[in-house]
Amino acid sequence: MMSDENKVGTYPFVAEPFHVDFMERLTMGVLGNHLLNCAGFHAAERGFGIATLNENHYTWVLSRLAIEMEEMPRAYEKFSVQTWVENVYRLFTDRNFAILNQEGKPIGYARSIWAMISMETRKPADLLTLHGGSITDYVCQKDCPIAKPGRIKVEEQQALDEYKIRYSDIDLNGHVNSVKYIEHILDLFPMEWFRQKTVKRFEVAYVAESYYGDTLSFYRQQISENEFDIEVKKNGQEVVVRSKVIFN
Amino acid sequence: MMSDENKVGTYPFVAEPFHVDFMERLTMGVLGNHLLNCAGFHAAERGFGIATLNENHYTWVLSRLAIEMEEMPRAYEKFSVQTWVENVYRLFTDRNFAILNQEGKPIGYARSIWAMISMETRKPADLLTLHGGSITDYVCQKDCPIAKPGRIKVEEQQALDEYKIRYSDIDLNGHVNSVKYIEHILDLFPMEWFRQKTVKRFEVAYVAESYYGDTLSFYRQQISENEFDIEVKKNGQEVVVRSKVIFN
Repeated sequence: MMSDENKVGTYPFVAEPFHVDFMERLTMGVLGNHLLNCAGFHAAERGFGIATLNENHYTWVLSRLAIEMEEMPRAYEKFSVQTWVENVYRLFTDRNFAILNQEGKPIGYARSIWAMISMETRKPADLLTLHGGSITDYVCQKDCPIAKPGRIKVEEQQALDEYKIRYSDIDLNGHVNSVKYIEHILDLFPMEWFRQKTVKRFEVAYVAESYYGDTLSFYRQQISENEFDIEVKKNGQEVVVRSKVIFN
Repeated sequence: MMSDENKVGTYPFVAEPFHVDFMERLTMGVLGNHLLNCAGFHAAERGFGIATLNENHYTWVLSRLAIEMEEMPRAYEKFSVQTWVENVYRLFTDRNFAILNQEGKPIGYARSIWAMISMETRKPADLLTLHGGSITDYVCQKDCPIAKPGRIKVEEQQALDEYKIRYSDIDLNGHVNSVKYIEHILDLFPMEWFRQKTVKRFEVAYVAESYYGDTLSFYRQQISENEFDIEVKKNGQEVVVRSKVIFN
């Protein structure tokens, strides 16, 4: 049996000067990018990364991401990200993260849910049998004291903003980069908010893909003083993303 | 006298999956970000970085950047950036870059021009006397076989596109991130262009700052089949950036 130590991947970062906002705090989009990279590193190092999977024509698809931060790394500060697999089900796996400051103290956590699909059929793969179910060897008990991603329901019918998808939004898969949605969603809030508040929790559910030339519409519903639910539709119809933002 | 070896900084990178475009090539914006970071690392390690300067209330300001690439690193490829100081004048310094592929072969070069200003008076500092002129100790003769940034003149009067500046565009200085202009300028070209062509040379001159809530207008003039000059104005008036893009 593998030690839990080997099951957790730890990756060092520094908050680069162009990766922080005007308050000198790391942006949520950049943090999201780091988390996704760490997921990739961790999986690749253990033989279930994209490169290995691609040979078998499978790829990971991010379904949900929830990030909860007590504080954000500041410009030039070092921090690190730990990641581990919490659960493996037939069609989904739960991967968690801890974000540690330069003293090694946790300053936030994240939860993510992933599926694996066949690139030929776009159908989900059975994680419990793929590669002899070896991913289950990495399941690890480690505390992740934030709520699981919840259900987000937006009734607002009036779009707050529209955005036409551009070249820089598109990733190597030909659809909008998961991280760009985070940026676009936080851009719905006036800059002044980020002077007075911080984002305590950011949650996103990826429902469908959007593509170059699509127009995204953003519907925002205020749940309480500091809590907002957001729905993003493409071309006024299909929901592509739902999100919850909680400030404090 | 210092050896030229110590005068050149070399920094390793990998082309992250969310930092490449749909052709799986590193984006020009991300490369620009890496170059600016390397400039920062190189200066900091040698005692003339922002942290040291800030104590003295000075900061570096990027005036021009020209990047010329034979090829771009592909997704997951390792590459490295070398940087060195070519010249120091009273008000400006020339800093060059080489981008090396994983075999250490140069795949591109860049040139940049920087000034240093007082954060109190916004006036330029005299680089030849600051810190006893110690920056001149790092001037280094190393080949940078690309043209210097040239003059860019745009006569086009009809804006091709407009963009309202958002929270995610703003950097720690409170104005639009130098790298974001690169993204916005390349977003003026249809995605299909990037399937058939690559950006051979990208040049940008930073003329003035723009801020949250400003509207940027983009004027694009075609110089030849593959060459475009671009001018970016804020609020229909002041020029903030000029740029040249050459495809091949």
